[in-house]
Amino acid sequence: MKALWLDGDPSLRTDIAEPEPGAGEALVRVRLAGVCATDLELLRGYGPFRGVLGHEFVGEIAAAPDAPGRVGERVVGEINVACGRCRECLAGRPTHCERRRVAGIRGHDGAFAEYLCLPLVNLYRVPDSVPDGAAVFAEPLAAALEIPRQISIGPDQRVLVVGAGRLGQLIARVLALTGCALAVVARHARQRALLEAVGIPWIAEDAVPERTLDIVVEATGSPGGFALARHAVRPRGTVVLKSTYQGLLRADFSALVVDEITLIGSRCGPFPAALRLLQQGLIDPSPLVDARYPLADSVAALHRAAAPGVMKVLIDCQT
Amino acid sequence: MKALWLDGDPSLRTDIAEPEPGAGEALVRVRLAGVCATDLELLRGYGPFRGVLGHEFVGEIAAAPDAPGRVGERVVGEINVACGRCRECLAGRPTHCERRRVAGIRGHDGAFAEYLCLPLVNLYRVPDSVPDGAAVFAEPLAAALEIPRQISIGPDQRVLVVGAGRLGQLIARVLALTGCALAVVARHARQRALLEAVGIPWIAEDAVPERTLDIVVEATGSPGGFALARHAVRPRGTVVLKSTYQGLLRADFSALVVDEITLIGSRCGPFPAALRLLQQGLIDPSPLVDARYPLADSVAALHRAAAPGVMKVLIDCQT
Repeated sequence: MKALWLDGDPSLRTDIAEPEPGAGEALVRVRLAGVCATDLELLRGYGPFRGVLGHEFVGEIAAAPDAPGRVGERVVGEINVACGRCRECLAGRPTHCERRRVAGIRGHDGAFAEYLCLPLVNLYRVPDSVPDGAAVFAEPLAAALEIPRQISIGPDQRVLVVGAGRLGQLIARVLALTGCALAVVARHARQRALLEAVGIPWIAEDAVPERTLDIVVEATGSPGGFALARHAVRPRGTVVLKSTYQGLLRADFSALVVDEITLIGSRCGPFPAALRLLQQGLIDPSPLVDARYPLADSVAALHRAAAPGVMKVLIDCQT
Repeated sequence: MKALWLDGDPSLRTDIAEPEPGAGEALVRVRLAGVCATDLELLRGYGPFRGVLGHEFVGEIAAAPDAPGRVGERVVGEINVACGRCRECLAGRPTHCERRRVAGIRGHDGAFAEYLCLPLVNLYRVPDSVPDGAAVFAEPLAAALEIPRQISIGPDQRVLVVGAGRLGQLIARVLALTGCALAVVARHARQRALLEAVGIPWIAEDAVPERTLDIVVEATGSPGGFALARHAVRPRGTVVLKSTYQGLLRADFSALVVDEITLIGSRCGPFPAALRLLQQGLIDPSPLVDARYPLADSVAALHRAAAPGVMKVLIDCQT
C-alpha cells in the first residue's frame, strides 16, 4: 500500500505491506488524516520514530476478526496502544501505559497510509452527522479537552491561551465553552481572523498584562511561550503546559515557589467528549483547514504544514 | 536593644533602636525565636536583605496603641506584612501582596531581637496550653499546612516527602494526619530516629521506587531533591515544591507534559490551623529542638543550625 514513511527523512512509499489486525485489533481504511505539530517535530528528530507517520485520522473499519459486526463502522482512533496489564493500565490511566506504543509516534505505524491497525477499544464510532472533515479533528480536540478534565475552569476565571496555531485554536474554542474571560495571544493575521470569526478576543504578545491571569495555557512549545505564560499568570495561578519542548528548559523554580504557581503538563484527552462537541456543533473546526492533499503528495503536505501561520493541512489517504 | 543584624555578615548589635508600632501595629516582646533554612540562605546571600534576621517567634504584645486590650497577649505572627489595598490583597491573597514586606526576609525587621513590630492582624493568640517551645513552631507548621490547603491528600494515596530536615519533619507529621501511605527520604541517623519515634517510615534515597508515588513533596531545596521527586512521582501525579532553590533549575518540561505531572509551588500557610494542631497535641515539635542559645550568642546559634543534620535551634530573645 501507499504510505508516508519516516526514516530520518520522510518519503512516499508504495511498497509498504498492508498491516494485519492481531487479536482484538481492527484494520482501518483511512479516509482522511491531519498533520499536527508533533508530526513536524518528529521530522526534525524529536523522537527516534521510524515507520508510518500520522496520528489524526478518520476512517472505516475494513476488517475486525474479533468483532465482525463493526466492519464498515466509521471511526476515529485513540492513538495510545496500551498493554492493559501494567500498573498504569490497571490504575485507569491507559494513555500512560508503561509499555504503550503510540500510532505514528512510537513503535506503531500511523495514519498517513491507506490502512492502519489499532485495537478495537481505541476506535470510537463517529456519529453520522459529523462529516469526515470535522471528525478528523477528534484527536487534537480530545487533547484540548484534557485541560478541563485536569483542572476546573469556571465562568468567572480569567484565562489566557498563549499561541493560536492548530492546537491553540482548538483549545481556545473548548475553553470558551466554559464562559470564562478568555483571550488568546495570536501573532499572525490569519490566526487573529479565525479567532475574530468566533468572537474570541486575541491579544498581541506585548499587550499581555503582568501577573493577572488565573489560568494560562502554553500552546506554543517554545521557551518564549513559557516565559510569557509565567509573566501573565497571577500568584497561586495555574500554567497548563500543552506542548512539548526541544531539550531542557531553564526555569526559576524559586519564583514558582514564592508565587505558589501550579504547572501542569497535559497530553491526550477524552475522545467521547470530542465527538459530542462535534456532533452538537459546539465546535466547528472546518475553518481551520488550510489545504488538502492526496496521500501521493503527502511530502508536500508536510512542507505546507510547516510554513509559518499555516493551520490544518489534511491528507486524503485513498487518493 | 539587642538584635542579630544582617548586613552581608551577621553580627550581634546592642545599639538597634527599639521599633515603634505604627497605625494598626503592635510591639511584640520576643520570648523565643527559631532558626530556619531561609535564615541560613539569607546569610549565604539568597536575598538582598539587610536588617534584623528571624521570622519564627513567640512573644507577647508589649504595646498596641490601636488595641490596648491586646497588651500582654501571648502571640505568634504571620510574617507577610500586606498593604491591604492591592489586587492580591483584595483577592484574598495577602501573603502574595504586591507590596508585601516580610519580617526578617524583606524590608521589615525580624524576630532575632528583643522586640519586633508587626500589624495586629498578623498576630495570633497562642492558647495557654501551648508552651513557648511548641508555639515557636507555628510559622513553619503553618507552611507545612499550606500543602493540604492547596491539594487534596486522601487516605488511600501514596505520598513521599523528599528531605527530613526541619521543614520536612513538620511536613511529614502534618501529612501523616491524613492517614495516607507516607514515607520520608531521610539521610541522617538523627532524622531517621525522629521519624521512627512517631511511626513514620523513612526510606534511603537509593530505595525510592520509580514512577509510583501519587504525591511527592520536595523539601530539600537542592536540584538533586527535585530529580528524585521527579523519579518517584507516577504519571499524572503531583510534585509539591516546598523549598526555594539557588538560581535557575534545568528541567525536562517535555517529560512533564508527556507524564502530565502537576508541579505546585508552596510557601506560607494558615496559622490558625497550626495553633489548633499544637493545642490538640496532634503535632509535638519539641523533639525537633537540638539546641537553645541566648540572643547574646545568636551568631553561634546560626552556625550550629548550619551544621549537617542539625534540626531546630532556638534563640531565647530576652537573655
